[in-house]
Amino acid sequence: MGMCLVNDTVGIPMGKGRFCVAKMCPVTDARAGILETSHGRVLTPVFMPVGTQGSVKAVAPEELVALGVQILLCNTYHLHLRPGEELVADFGGLHAFIGWDGPILTDSGGYQVFSLAKLRKITEEGVFFQNHLDGSPTVLTPESSMEIQQKLGADVVMAFDECPPYGCSEVDLEEAVRRTVRWAERGLAWWAGREERTDRLLFGIVQGGTHEKLRRDCALALVEMGFDGYAIGGVSVGEPEGEMMVAIEASMGFLPTKKPRYAMGIGEPNQIVEMVARGVDMFDCVLPTRMARHGTAYCSTGKMNLRNSCYARDKEPIERGCSCPACRKFSRAYIRHLLVSGEILGMRLLTLHNLHFYTKLMAEIRGAILKGVFHLFREKFLEGWIEGELERKKMKNSAG
Amino acid sequence: MGMCLVNDTVGIPMGKGRFCVAKMCPVTDARAGILETSHGRVLTPVFMPVGTQGSVKAVAPEELVALGVQILLCNTYHLHLRPGEELVADFGGLHAFIGWDGPILTDSGGYQVFSLAKLRKITEEGVFFQNHLDGSPTVLTPESSMEIQQKLGADVVMAFDECPPYGCSEVDLEEAVRRTVRWAERGLAWWAGREERTDRLLFGIVQGGTHEKLRRDCALALVEMGFDGYAIGGVSVGEPEGEMMVAIEASMGFLPTKKPRYAMGIGEPNQIVEMVARGVDMFDCVLPTRMARHGTAYCSTGKMNLRNSCYARDKEPIERGCSCPACRKFSRAYIRHLLVSGEILGMRLLTLHNLHFYTKLMAEIRGAILKGVFHLFREKFLEGWIEGELERKKMKNSAG
Repeated sequence: MGMCLVNDTVGIPMGKGRFCVAKMCPVTDARAGILETSHGRVLTPVFMPVGTQGSVKAVAPEELVALGVQILLCNTYHLHLRPGEELVADFGGLHAFIGWDGPILTDSGGYQVFSLAKLRKITEEGVFFQNHLDGSPTVLTPESSMEIQQKLGADVVMAFDECPPYGCSEVDLEEAVRRTVRWAERGLAWWAGREERTDRLLFGIVQGGTHEKLRRDCALALVEMGFDGYAIGGVSVGEPEGEMMVAIEASMGFLPTKKPRYAMGIGEPNQIVEMVARGVDMFDCVLPTRMARHGTAYCSTGKMNLRNSCYARDKEPIERGCSCPACRKFSRAYIRHLLVSGEILGMRLLTLHNLHFYTKLMAEIRGAILKGVFHLFREKFLEGWIEGELERKKMKNSAG
Repeated sequence: MGMCLVNDTVGIPMGKGRFCVAKMCPVTDARAGILETSHGRVLTPVFMPVGTQGSVKAVAPEELVALGVQILLCNTYHLHLRPGEELVADFGGLHAFIGWDGPILTDSGGYQVFSLAKLRKITEEGVFFQNHLDGSPTVLTPESSMEIQQKLGADVVMAFDECPPYGCSEVDLEEAVRRTVRWAERGLAWWAGREERTDRLLFGIVQGGTHEKLRRDCALALVEMGFDGYAIGGVSVGEPEGEMMVAIEASMGFLPTKKPRYAMGIGEPNQIVEMVARGVDMFDCVLPTRMARHGTAYCSTGKMNLRNSCYARDKEPIERGCSCPACRKFSRAYIRHLLVSGEILGMRLLTLHNLHFYTKLMAEIRGAILKGVFHLFREKFLEGWIEGELERKKMKNSAG
C-alpha cells in the first residue's frame, strides 16, 4: 500500500487495485479513503448510482460526469440476459459500450436471482432459474458470474452469493452463509492465474441476515481468503432499520480496516450517514433515481413529493441554494406540471437533483472526515433530516 | 418592412412583428426569409419542434438551444387545461415558466378540440366539449383562444379555426370554412386596441380540405382582413399525400408573398422539401419526437427502426458523419439495447438525433436557397430519401 495524502490524491504512489485510508474520524469509525481502479481513483465514502441495464435511468453519461459521479454500479444479471456479455465484450467492454470512462462495479447477480427470477433451484453447483424477461431456463454459478463480470470489463467484481430472504429460518440462513463462503472460494479460484486479475478488484459478500454469529463467521471466513474488499449483502431486504444496523455492525467488526467496505443496496441519506459512522466506505441504491421517477425529491430537510398540489404555484426551486441543473433553472411548479403531465423531462430533472443531492452529501461527508468534524456533521445532518421529515408529516396530516 | 441582407441578419432595421424575404429560388417558389418576434429573429424556412404541454418531449431547453432550434410550438388546448393560462401568466408567461427564451408559437386549440375532445357541440359562439383529461365541460371561443394565447405570452398567435375531418361532405366543409372566416374576424377584433398586440404576430388559418375553390375563398377572405401571417390548416389529417399537395397549392396562390406562410402539422422531411418548393416558410410536426420514442431515426437516406434486430451488433453511429449528441458518442447497438430495454436514455438520444436531423435539414434548405441552388438540393435530397426508403423496404421484405 502506498502513501496517502489527505487533500491531494495526485501523484500518490498506489498500486492498481488498492485502497488506502487517508483520514480517520477521531470520534466515530468513519474514514476518508482512496480506491484505485483501472479506470481512475475513487474518493470514499462514495455513492454509486445504479445503471441496471447499462444506463442510469433517464441520465446521460456526460451528465453523470458533470454531477461529480465517480463510479457506477451495473447489474450482472440484467446485462447477462440482455444484451449479453459476449456482445458487450465485442464492443470492448461496458465502458466503451455505454460511454462511461470512469470505474464500474458489477454486482454478482446473486441478489437479482433471488428477487427477480422465478422457479429457482439452488444446488451446490449454482442457481437454476427462469429469467424474468422471457422465462427461459438460465443458470448462474460462482464461476459463470466471474466470467460474465470479466467479459463486461468491471473494475470491481463481486463474488457470487446466496441472498436469503428476510425472516427465513436460522437453518436456512446458516446454509446460505456456508454456501456463500464455498462459492466465494470458487470465485477466487476462477481468477487464480488469470492475467486480467491484476486489473480488477475482487470483493467478497458477507451474508448472515440479522444473525450476529453468522455474520461474524461469514466475515471471518471471507477475510481469511483475502479479498480486495468486502461487501455486506442481505441488508435492506425488508428488515426494520434497527435490525439493518445490527447486521452491519455484526459484520463490520470483523472486516480489516485496511480494505474497502461496501454496504449493498443502501440507502436513505440518514442511513448512509449512520453507516459511514460505522466505517462503511461504499454505497449503492436505486432510491435517488427510482424515487425521482415517482416524483420525490431529496433535500437536506428530508423528502418532498413534488406531485403534491401544494407545489402547483410554488415559484421556489426544489431546494433553495442547490446548484443542480433542475434548481438552477426551474420552479417547483413547472417540475410538478411536468410530473403530473407525464413528461419525461420531469423525471429527468428530479433524477439530476437527487443524484446531485447524494453526490454532494458524500462530498460533504468526506470533507467533514478530512477536517476531523464528521461527528458534528453527522449530528447536524440527522437533526435537520429528522426534523424536516416530521414537519412534512405534520403538514400532510393537517392538510389531509 | 426593412431592408434584408442575405447572409447577415445583424443590424437589419426591421420593425417588431415583421417578416421579410431575403432571397427567392430562381426555379421554384422557395424563399429564405427572416421573421422578427419579440423574442428574437427566426430564419426561415424553419421547423418548430412541438412542446405540447410546455416541454419538447424528453428534451431540456438548453439541449434545444444547442441543436439550433429557433422557435417552439406549444399547445393552447393542453396548456389551458393544465396548468392553466392564469398560472402561466402568474409566472411571467410560458417563456419564464418553461425556461425557453426564444420565440414561441401557440396553436389556436382548434385542431385539438376536434382530435382529442369528446362530445363536441359546435355553435356560432364556439366549441363546447368534454376535455380529454377529466371529461369536464370546457368551452373554447375565438375570443377565449386569443385571451389564453395572450396570457401564455405567445410570440405568434393563431386564430381559432374549425378543423373539419378528412372526407366530410362539401356542405360541412363549406360551413367550416365560413365559420373559420367569421371566427378569424372575431379573433382580430379581440386584439383591436390592445397594447400587447404590437408584441405579437397574429396568423389566420386557411381551411377548406382538398376543395380548391373553398381553399381559395378562405385564403382571400383572411388576406383581406390583414393578418401578420397565414397558416394552412386541415392538412395531414388522413388524406393521401397527393391531396395534401392539392390543399397546399390551392391555398398558396392566394397568400401574399410578403407574409410568412405556415403549413400546420407537416411533416415528413420529403414533404417539407416539397412544400418549401411551393413557398411555405414554417413547419411543425410531432414526427421527429414521437417517432424517436417509438425507436425510429431520421437519416438522409430515409427512416430506420433502431429496434430492428439487425442493429443488435452494429458498431456504427445512427448516421455516419452526423454530429448530433447521439451519433458523436453511441453505437446503434447500444441505442437499440436501450430502446429494447425500455430505457429513457434511448428515447432521449433518438429524439436529439431526429431534432438535429430536422434542424440541419432546414439550415441546408435555407443555405441552398441563399446560394440559388435549392432546386438542385431538392432533387438530390428526394433522390437519396426515396432510394433509401426503397432499399430498406427491400431489405425488410427479403429478411422477413
